[in-house]
Amino acid sequence: MNHQSISSHPRPLIALMTDFGLADGDVGVMKGVIATIAPDVNIIDITHEVAPQNIPSGAWILATAYRYFPNNTVFVCVVDPGVGSSRNAIAVHAGDWFFVGPDNGLFSYVLVQRAIHRAVVLSNPAYHLAQVSSTFHGRDIFAPAGAHLARGVALIELGTQVDPATLRRIDIGPPSRRGTHIDAHILHVDRFGNLISDIPLSLVPELFSSQAEEQQAQIIFPTLGAVVNRRSHFFAESPDDGKPFIYADSSGYVGIAVRNGNATRALGAGTGIPITYVIMNI
Amino acid sequence: MNHQSISSHPRPLIALMTDFGLADGDVGVMKGVIATIAPDVNIIDITHEVAPQNIPSGAWILATAYRYFPNNTVFVCVVDPGVGSSRNAIAVHAGDWFFVGPDNGLFSYVLVQRAIHRAVVLSNPAYHLAQVSSTFHGRDIFAPAGAHLARGVALIELGTQVDPATLRRIDIGPPSRRGTHIDAHILHVDRFGNLISDIPLSLVPELFSSQAEEQQAQIIFPTLGAVVNRRSHFFAESPDDGKPFIYADSSGYVGIAVRNGNATRALGAGTGIPITYVIMNI
Amino acid sequence: MNHQSISSHPRPLIALMTDFGLADGDVGVMKGVIATIAPDVNIIDITHEVAPQNIPSGAWILATAYRYFPNNTVFVCVVDPGVGSSRNAIAVHAGDWFFVGPDNGLFSYVLVQRAIHRAVVLSNPAYHLAQVSSTFHGRDIFAPAGAHLARGVALIELGTQVDPATLRRIDIGPPSRRGTHIDAHILHVDRFGNLISDIPLSLVPELFSSQAEEQQAQIIFPTLGAVVNRRSHFFAESPDDGKPFIYADSSGYVGIAVRNGNATRALGAGTGIPITYVIMNI
Repeated sequence: MNHQSISSHPRPLIALMTDFGLADGDVGVMKGVIATIAPDVNIIDITHEVAPQNIPSGAWILATAYRYFPNNTVFVCVVDPGVGSSRNAIAVHAGDWFFVGPDNGLFSYVLVQRAIHRAVVLSNPAYHLAQVSSTFHGRDIFAPAGAHLARGVALIELGTQVDPATLRRIDIGPPSRRGTHIDAHILHVDRFGNLISDIPLSLVPELFSSQAEEQQAQIIFPTLGAVVNRRSHFFAESPDDGKPFIYADSSGYVGIAVRNGNATRALGAGTGIPITYVIMNI
Repeated sequence: MNHQSISSHPRPLIALMTDFGLADGDVGVMKGVIATIAPDVNIIDITHEVAPQNIPSGAWILATAYRYFPNNTVFVCVVDPGVGSSRNAIAVHAGDWFFVGPDNGLFSYVLVQRAIHRAVVLSNPAYHLAQVSSTFHGRDIFAPAGAHLARGVALIELGTQVDPATLRRIDIGPPSRRGTHIDAHILHVDRFGNLISDIPLSLVPELFSSQAEEQQAQIIFPTLGAVVNRRSHFFAESPDDGKPFIYADSSGYVGIAVRNGNATRALGAGTGIPITYVIMNI
Repeated sequence: MNHQSISSHPRPLIALMTDFGLADGDVGVMKGVIATIAPDVNIIDITHEVAPQNIPSGAWILATAYRYFPNNTVFVCVVDPGVGSSRNAIAVHAGDWFFVGPDNGLFSYVLVQRAIHRAVVLSNPAYHLAQVSSTFHGRDIFAPAGAHLARGVALIELGTQVDPATLRRIDIGPPSRRGTHIDAHILHVDRFGNLISDIPLSLVPELFSSQAEEQQAQIIFPTLGAVVNRRSHFFAESPDDGKPFIYADSSGYVGIAVRNGNATRALGAGTGIPITYVIMNI
């Protein structure tokens, strides 16, 4: 495979993720820019409802999504509280995909999980819109860069190569396990009110192993005085009694849910809340 | 037409309907899975804001939509409170379309309204993702099945054929008319606050016949002590006075609206509320 | 260029803007209609969250978006409180684009900003759906008209030509500048709570000229007793102190924002609020 070109893909694909919401026309404008530069490209939305300017949340959503996209997909991601400041605009070729956006930690999971083939700062104005605003780089810099990549422009054409080691990373864990205790956090609340922790399932392989029949873990919410000590393989297995249970979230992380209910409300919990995961009978 | 293949379609089309919302990346991930399996497929969203786990509401929205899509469209629909339990995952060829989703009543209208050519349980793991979670079959089973159908795999390849008569159906009415009275319900509240009943317009052909000039029906809300006895052919015809009127909703059902207002708030009504439709001058 | 046909475009494109929201299936149904008529067309959403029945807001969002789309894009726009009444359904070829929707002022900015090549009333039923409802012209008239245009039908085929001068226009400003004062309004509140005024940046060229280093303007909110007299070239330049500042919005209009905050809440302001822009040191 030629890592610098995606022209061999049957239909170039751009995936978008922003915190712009869908009420303003901003996402539509980005797509108009892409369609102007690369009329044959296919565009898929990951989400545009990342919590406003919340880089960790955006980084996590991207981490749960990117591996499900075809090779050579170009991800254009904009959660960018520093727009207009000196933070760099970047494009990165990592694993089998391309990532375009601000250099502010939004790609932290990707940078840790994948081989980084090349990274550039988007310094070549030939691949920006003719007029670049100070507040909407999604339209003026990132969408054009992604569209040019998708139509086959080589990454290196977009700007100056940078050492991948210098790209910004945020702390993405995972929490360390010390004997029977893991001090962790709630990382995300999904639409159903399920609480997703930053504990990867791979860190607690005994939790849902097929041999383990009885309960063997509990999650303590120290700041809330709550303990969840029930476990369920799937929602319909749990009693419909409003009580929370531990489950294996499809994102690959440990979650807490209430069947036909809302764990966030039931526990009074939310993003950022500390939790302690305790293995009971290891 | 070869009922088992859609390869002759100029551009295969998948329509998605879920209750996942757009805030999480789940819908984007399903599209990534589809694009990986069937890069040339076109994807259209019906909605992802079905009321969470509300099968009747999802079934009704699908019923108002599917007939407007091209022949051979593959509908991938996920409103699935029983995910991970023993409910079946199915694909159905009915009328000129294909339907993929849980066997929980979500396809009730389609099954009643259309000839069912064939139905299968999605039991063939060759057409699932390699790893199947217990909570996200939209990503792991339904999106892959829909994508394989769209790229031309025959329905029967996806799993074991089942008797269509055994597929789950929910009660979708219509309410029966007894003389001048129809005991019915509010089925849906749309974005403008319009109340949509489960009375198909075909059940009350005199309501909006062109000959009928004067009022001839009223709708009683017995639990609310309210009566709506005004009728309007279109919104701009009704006085702008905040009072509700009966109209022919574009879904093909009798509705109640307030011009430049919100019938749900004006009446204190909502989904599930009983109504009695009374023909006055038959 | 043949102004009456877009068949030469590599991939015909329809851009949609409505106030339908995404919870009902209405937007999905419009796309199904388009895909049935023009299977190869590409569809991009501008937004479907225009404030319900708010024509000025829809007109403004379209104005900030259309220029970023490829030549020959067909814009199908539905914000239509008068649906079913005697207002006309129209299609307009203006500038390098086509616009389809109700004749109620929704295209006011386009009609002022671009050369109008031709306009027609959508009076030819051959290009409507077979059954036309009185409440959902988006599905029955506008989506089909847009799809036929996108597949190459000439504008004039869709109906009767009308004098563009007779098309409805709403007052879109701009406010006039009298010496050092401009009496203007807040036109739009975006997702981040930024307030966008109806003062085009071109009316106040000195505000963000590169030579002007010191503050030289303030915005008074006479009905709120508030004054904003700080200016920032971009968000990250402003102190993170919760105080509002004047900035150049990417839409091309003067805006007021709070860094990492919400100017609408900080000021108690909203759409329609009068403002006075005062040039201090001209």
